Amino acid sequence: MRSHTRYLTFETPERRQFVRITDDVREAVAVSGVEEGMVLVSAMHITAGVRVNDDEPGILADTLEWLDKLAPPSWREPANDVARELGPDPGDFRHHRGGGEDNGDAHWKNLLVHHQVVLPITAGRLDLGPWQAVFYAEFDGGRPKRLVIKVLGE
Amino acid sequence: MRSHTRYLTFETPERRQFVRITDDVREAVAVSGVEEGMVLVSAMHITAGVRVNDDEPGILADTLEWLDKLAPPSWREPANDVARELGPDPGDFRHHRGGGEDNGDAHWKNLLVHHQVVLPITAGRLDLGPWQAVFYAEFDGGRPKRLVIKVLGE
Amino acid sequence: MRSHTRYLTFETPERRQFVRITDDVREAVAVSGVEEGMVLVSAMHITAGVRVNDDEPGILADTLEWLDKLAPPSWREPANDVARELGPDPGDFRHHRGGGEDNGDAHWKNLLVHHQVVLPITAGRLDLGPWQAVFYAEFDGGRPKRLVIKVLGE
Repeated sequence: MRSHTRYLTFETPERRQFVRITDDVREAVAVSGVEEGMVLVSAMHITAGVRVNDDEPGILADTLEWLDKLAPPSWREPANDVARELGPDPGDFRHHRGGGEDNGDAHWKNLLVHHQVVLPITAGRLDLGPWQAVFYAEFDGGRPKRLVIKVLGE
Repeated sequence: MRSHTRYLTFETPERRQFVRITDDVREAVAVSGVEEGMVLVSAMHITAGVRVNDDEPGILADTLEWLDKLAPPSWREPANDVARELGPDPGDFRHHRGGGEDNGDAHWKNLLVHHQVVLPITAGRLDLGPWQAVFYAEFDGGRPKRLVIKVLGE
Repeated sequence: MRSHTRYLTFETPERRQFVRITDDVREAVAVSGVEEGMVLVSAMHITAGVRVNDDEPGILADTLEWLDKLAPPSWREPANDVARELGPDPGDFRHHRGGGEDNGDAHWKNLLVHHQVVLPITAGRLDLGPWQAVFYAEFDGGRPKRLVIKVLGE
């Protein structure tokens, strides 16, 4: 059995941002020498996620807008009345009451997006469909955040 | 270590549809000869998902209806005012502006449902609870779509 | 290759409740002797989930409240008008019509939260970020429910 571990660190300029990491995952698979196996790609934070989808700027922007409705921030005005009613009731997140925190919405976005994916490796290559790209999804950026890539197989 | 890979192709008559694939996964596990391990079941498209839940027609229909509210299509009237407000603002998906695309909602449903599951294999069998069934979740059907099953273990 | 399997059973007093299980997962990893690998933590029910997030009581309470808006129960009044419109249309879940069932919302919460996570093992230890805790998420409690932990690696 072979295994390989790699860590990435992100410090995104935007508070919420998708960062394409398909090539980093491919490189970790190549270095591992694994021909048949799986690779786990996992955010090490509770306010970020990992997702596989289309690397098309329109859908990425659509998705960030939509996530702000389903999991609304309390650090700015809700996008509309539905976002307002989906927010904490009443007022602000319990999570913010101790003071210092304002990222409750990032915990919710982490739930919707999920913090990890597992991808197949076949014949030494990342076995993705033609439109599948891997993204790190930052929801509380502007500071260093880590991600782990773990390759396992033979 | 043993591994086994199998691809399935779906071309569903419905645009959105759940297809039960538990037996396909069981068969791949049996063929692999793996006694202890994991099996990854992963859609190879960005407008489909894989999910484990109850094979009960009522909850499957409930869930498709609900996903059309949370992740509303723009190719038909929103189900109600909440669906309308959760849709792209204003009007249509940025993803559709280049022309040709109308499946932005399928990308969002892929996010909610996720494109993959990992299932345990114990004593040579798929180790599911009594009500757990595996489904391919199509959100933009009517054309061939692929899924990969990757078994890993010993 | 090494593998190790452990089952946990929960019978929560609350209908919906998060139960921290990080130490159970750590113990399974230690017993397995695996130095490099992955551990799958998976609910064996269709009305429960597994999630990694912050063990902070405020965000856990915020999240249960929010899930009751996104995936509203029909066994009590909707939290507000948005929750009402996100519920089954009209009236109750198709899933409840056969009689005996009232847990349609728990199936939907299972979809949002997901029933499993895969976690990395590095140098014999569960390789989590500093704030990452593992939770069993019960959405239809008060009866025995099972979860499986499967460790795989070398």
